[in-house]
Amino acid sequence: MSLDAVLARIDDQLPAATDRLLELLRIPSISTDPAYADQCSDAADWLVADLNSLGIKAEKRETPGHPMVVGHVDGDGPHLLFYGHYDVQPVDPLNLWENDPFDPRVEDTPNGPVIRGRGSSDDKGQLMTFVEACRAWREINGTLPCKITFFFEGEEESGSPSLVPFMQQNADELRADIALICDTGLFQSKTPAIVTMLRGMVTEELTITGPRVDLHSGFFGGLAMNPIRALSGILADLHDETGKVTIPGFYDNIPDLTDQVRDQWEGLDFDWQGFLGSVGLSEPAGEKGRMPLEMIWSRPTAEVNGIWGGYTGDGFKTVLPAQAHAKISFRLVQGQDPLAIRKAFQTFVRDRLPTDCTVEFKEYGASAASVMETADPAFEAARQALSDEWPDEAAYVGCGGSIPIAGHFQSILGMNAMLIGFGKDDDAIHSPNEKYDMESFHKGTRSWARILDALCKG
Amino acid sequence: MSLDAVLARIDDQLPAATDRLLELLRIPSISTDPAYADQCSDAADWLVADLNSLGIKAEKRETPGHPMVVGHVDGDGPHLLFYGHYDVQPVDPLNLWENDPFDPRVEDTPNGPVIRGRGSSDDKGQLMTFVEACRAWREINGTLPCKITFFFEGEEESGSPSLVPFMQQNADELRADIALICDTGLFQSKTPAIVTMLRGMVTEELTITGPRVDLHSGFFGGLAMNPIRALSGILADLHDETGKVTIPGFYDNIPDLTDQVRDQWEGLDFDWQGFLGSVGLSEPAGEKGRMPLEMIWSRPTAEVNGIWGGYTGDGFKTVLPAQAHAKISFRLVQGQDPLAIRKAFQTFVRDRLPTDCTVEFKEYGASAASVMETADPAFEAARQALSDEWPDEAAYVGCGGSIPIAGHFQSILGMNAMLIGFGKDDDAIHSPNEKYDMESFHKGTRSWARILDALCKG
Repeated sequence: MSLDAVLARIDDQLPAATDRLLELLRIPSISTDPAYADQCSDAADWLVADLNSLGIKAEKRETPGHPMVVGHVDGDGPHLLFYGHYDVQPVDPLNLWENDPFDPRVEDTPNGPVIRGRGSSDDKGQLMTFVEACRAWREINGTLPCKITFFFEGEEESGSPSLVPFMQQNADELRADIALICDTGLFQSKTPAIVTMLRGMVTEELTITGPRVDLHSGFFGGLAMNPIRALSGILADLHDETGKVTIPGFYDNIPDLTDQVRDQWEGLDFDWQGFLGSVGLSEPAGEKGRMPLEMIWSRPTAEVNGIWGGYTGDGFKTVLPAQAHAKISFRLVQGQDPLAIRKAFQTFVRDRLPTDCTVEFKEYGASAASVMETADPAFEAARQALSDEWPDEAAYVGCGGSIPIAGHFQSILGMNAMLIGFGKDDDAIHSPNEKYDMESFHKGTRSWARILDALCKG
Repeated sequence: MSLDAVLARIDDQLPAATDRLLELLRIPSISTDPAYADQCSDAADWLVADLNSLGIKAEKRETPGHPMVVGHVDGDGPHLLFYGHYDVQPVDPLNLWENDPFDPRVEDTPNGPVIRGRGSSDDKGQLMTFVEACRAWREINGTLPCKITFFFEGEEESGSPSLVPFMQQNADELRADIALICDTGLFQSKTPAIVTMLRGMVTEELTITGPRVDLHSGFFGGLAMNPIRALSGILADLHDETGKVTIPGFYDNIPDLTDQVRDQWEGLDFDWQGFLGSVGLSEPAGEKGRMPLEMIWSRPTAEVNGIWGGYTGDGFKTVLPAQAHAKISFRLVQGQDPLAIRKAFQTFVRDRLPTDCTVEFKEYGASAASVMETADPAFEAARQALSDEWPDEAAYVGCGGSIPIAGHFQSILGMNAMLIGFGKDDDAIHSPNEKYDMESFHKGTRSWARILDALCKG
């Protein structure tokens, strides 16, 4: 059977595949720092060359920022698009790294060998799991299993400014039957997972002004409105005693979990005590009566991400400040319209403003939640393929964060997306001493071979 | 009558008195800046020489900080102590001054002549009103009217670090029948006033810690406790909907205004609309049912003077912070024990801490309110003397701020104090282009002559 041969080839070639990844990791493609623009371009060149060596017609495509890499290979069966990003996070603080972040190496650890270096997990190592699966497939079968478009970005760690325009300008070229995205992790570092829902987000800054100038709290205190008091009252009002957000209409149109999803999530045996305990907490602080996984995956939130006003330096100053400020974000779920939530929040604030206070809003980003069409048979095929590779059965999971690319595939290209990745919680992405387990790299590559087989044999 | 002669002498000598004040104003005695230590010492020397010229045995007395000036003159009748301070505020921002702050001058303005320069009002000009009254008295009568101790401080604008130790070490020398303090103003820039109550203050910083580290609000938001939410809830709880502070026991033992004081305050016709309007406010924000003057003079407050937590820079960061902080002050009135209020507040916070949150308190200063013994006949005598000098009848007023010196005279020396001053609201003390109205200087000097006459003839 050809899949077995491909898997055996992956096993055999693991040292060579690791060497290739180390080569890519040596290129310091830090996208957010203009000083590394050439290195970002070098990483794109490296990928173009590597794809070309697989018989894929690939090229570096310029953007106003760092280049995209797009490659195509023809074939029968479904048309897949694979997305990953070749740029990496900055490496500060450098003194906390045990080795040069761009002199990657394989290290033995008590938990097995790891590939250590910036980008090993996020996302060069993950990106290469798919490329290596394709390489092994081709080496065994002479061709790739189906029509595949490769789409690599170089600005993911710096806000992806060129991504949406590029997708819009090249929509016909990029559109495929389904997108595969490898930039996520194993559930609880162990269970292979397909992310089927991502929360959206609305972010907003508000400034409440009371008096025209800062006042002396001796002369005015007791008589003049303090905007920090107004702000505290409004923020305190955002949640009721059961942890629910009190903004009118906030929960309208949010579907409840289906019994099927609820059963699946209950089956995941989420170790929420361990998850919270790792950061010094003991009790879920969300809506009473909801599962902890619901709180982070399928229920919306209102969080104050920053607050400031008055005197915040050393010592004491009895000022009664003119202004108080807060930055607030709402994580959104299926059914919530970001702009409606923004408007409802602004109304909520205005309705609670005391006399003599005014409010100004500064609007930051707004994006809706993404929910994948798991009815697409590709999902069940991929889930089965992952289950065949890993000890645990693969799960459909949510993700409390926002991964905008999945939404872009949906909204710009009308494509469903499967987010499958092999990172672990201790990979230290965005931190010093980033690593990717050799198990993640090896079984990740094998997983993609199995998924390609499952999706393309149909 | 000798008082009339003294007043006439003051009128005659106003130009010479002004020249003496200008000389003192030329000494840049900025106490908070170590670079001006010599100049502080120079100002003390100047005052010693000036007192000596009046036949007063005065000397500069060293402290760990800037020197005190203490002078004594013997006499019959009551023993008065006069307090003022010779140090001044820094002059930044210098570019906002129309002239050199230490090249003082007399300027004509639409509201009459003013003495312009740093310290003209706070407090060199006010201090010299008393000295000039003594000078005129001596020039007419050959002696001062009674036994007087002069006590000038050089650290009032930098927190008076040496004051309490000096008063304790020299208690027997400084103790008198009553203290006269000239560092306050006319009520509404117009009505001569004796301050009979000063609010005290307790200041406190609190830090609420939730998770051990800052968290990503995507991964943890909805599940993990946000300490800003906890802090907002506690701060919002500090006041009820009628503006009352909700800390248990907060209002215990606070006496209500006597009918006499209430009648006096109502008679003051406080223009609270103008007072609030000048800073862009329209409505008293204190306890419902209280007069605006009560809110700032005789009722306690709880004010948040600073708040901070999470990301407060430009842009947005969806952090769920580990900590949130606030600086809180309570203005205290008669009957409130600062340490009991501090303890009640800490209990109030602890009682409202959500699960998984801890609190740490950092205690700053604590001082009780001061209420003068207005039954002392000196008060009515001084009030009548002020009423004789000014068009408006003099009033007993409160002061919402804290002037610790009055409390120190009470607690360390067991002395009653009368705070009488002639500053106006537009004097710009602590600000660029500080001035003292010639009317304040002239009628202030005349006021002290009348007060000396009233207190000493008995």
